[in-house]
Amino acid sequence: MHLKSQLKALVFDVFGTCVDWRSSIAREGEALGRTLGVTGVDWLAFADAWRAQYQPQMETVRSGTRPWTTLDVLHREALDGILPGFGLDELSAADRDELTRAWHRLDPWPDVVEGLTRLKTRYIIAPNSNGHIALLVNMAKRAGLPWDAILGAEIARAYKPRPEVYLRCAEALGLAPSSVMMVAAHNSDLVTAAGCGLQTAFVPRPAEYGPGQTSDLAPEREFDLVAMDFIDLANQLGIAPESVQ
Amino acid sequence: MHLKSQLKALVFDVFGTCVDWRSSIAREGEALGRTLGVTGVDWLAFADAWRAQYQPQMETVRSGTRPWTTLDVLHREALDGILPGFGLDELSAADRDELTRAWHRLDPWPDVVEGLTRLKTRYIIAPNSNGHIALLVNMAKRAGLPWDAILGAEIARAYKPRPEVYLRCAEALGLAPSSVMMVAAHNSDLVTAAGCGLQTAFVPRPAEYGPGQTSDLAPEREFDLVAMDFIDLANQLGIAPESVQ
Repeated sequence: MHLKSQLKALVFDVFGTCVDWRSSIAREGEALGRTLGVTGVDWLAFADAWRAQYQPQMETVRSGTRPWTTLDVLHREALDGILPGFGLDELSAADRDELTRAWHRLDPWPDVVEGLTRLKTRYIIAPNSNGHIALLVNMAKRAGLPWDAILGAEIARAYKPRPEVYLRCAEALGLAPSSVMMVAAHNSDLVTAAGCGLQTAFVPRPAEYGPGQTSDLAPEREFDLVAMDFIDLANQLGIAPESVQ
Repeated sequence: MHLKSQLKALVFDVFGTCVDWRSSIAREGEALGRTLGVTGVDWLAFADAWRAQYQPQMETVRSGTRPWTTLDVLHREALDGILPGFGLDELSAADRDELTRAWHRLDPWPDVVEGLTRLKTRYIIAPNSNGHIALLVNMAKRAGLPWDAILGAEIARAYKPRPEVYLRCAEALGLAPSSVMMVAAHNSDLVTAAGCGLQTAFVPRPAEYGPGQTSDLAPEREFDLVAMDFIDLANQLGIAPESVQ
């Protein structure tokens, strides 16, 4: 922790680290199903299937096969691909658009708002997410995430784990990478961040993929911090609850 | 006001509209002068002279003569240019850097924090400023400006009044330009915004350039709203003080 004194900003992975995409997407699917009178869909499996398209889709952008494309477009294309497998191929275009926007309405893990609010009293806090600005702003307004700025993929016009996404965060804040800490529930995200010179904090989210999760249950490298949740992260950084006025 | 119902976001000019750059720069200059034992400098005239370099400098970027360059660089170059005229040519490089950062520490007009806090309860609020992200984040942290996102020149890599800066704000928020209102104390800013399809609100800041100000004292076109200050703007949009929890 010799680097702590020069720490100026914390940047956060969002999907999985700040918000519980799996339960939230299942909730939105269930609500749509009720409205349409659809029964018999395993909406958690639906959420998993949708999310499973995520990395392969982004890879088409990372590889240069397609130009910068926002998650609204990628999520909608993935949705079109998985609906037949769930017997939902007759979903209207309007319902597909609305369901795609469910990714703007994900619920935070219970510790996130309090933790971010405390961390914000001393540090600049911003997402470093593959979500685009509109998605992250809409999510933050609904969930009460008190970001100081919206950084990440759209600013860099590239998707993590491309190094330029991490480096652009620091540059946009006018900071050396070593003054910025990446906070994530995913080892791979932190390994890349560390390779770019950022400090790193691992916060496990063992329920991100449901009860059977086997990956990212523990840190696989030595990171600068390991915290149980965002409140523990604030505690470890010495920010007491009383610091929030 | 027939457009009000579809209004989703307000974007703000910052220098002059949200913050009082002239008094703030004079204050910072005076403080530095005291530290260095410098006397006899008219620091308000110094602030005016520094600001006078602003438009010509940005024009070199707008015209394509030089690539995208942040205000930290432009402010520092302008400072180097004006110091001899104030007998300050012996200012050290470190003091010049620190004084340049004074543009990150500008004070808001007295109505701004309350007004923004109220407006934020219903709308997305963001700067649409020629300031870069680091400057605007540092300013917001110090002054308590509760932005939802940091938009403006750096996102577009262009300076107002280039139309792409206004259009990029709306695009980044996933909104039609007509769902976004530009708030500014400068007629020219609003005329360009209206030309891009944004709604417009004029908020005069008659003391921006000091007691002798002759420009932008009143709206010169028909804008969607004219408000005395940000609190009046919130009132006109029907957002009561009680809406802030």
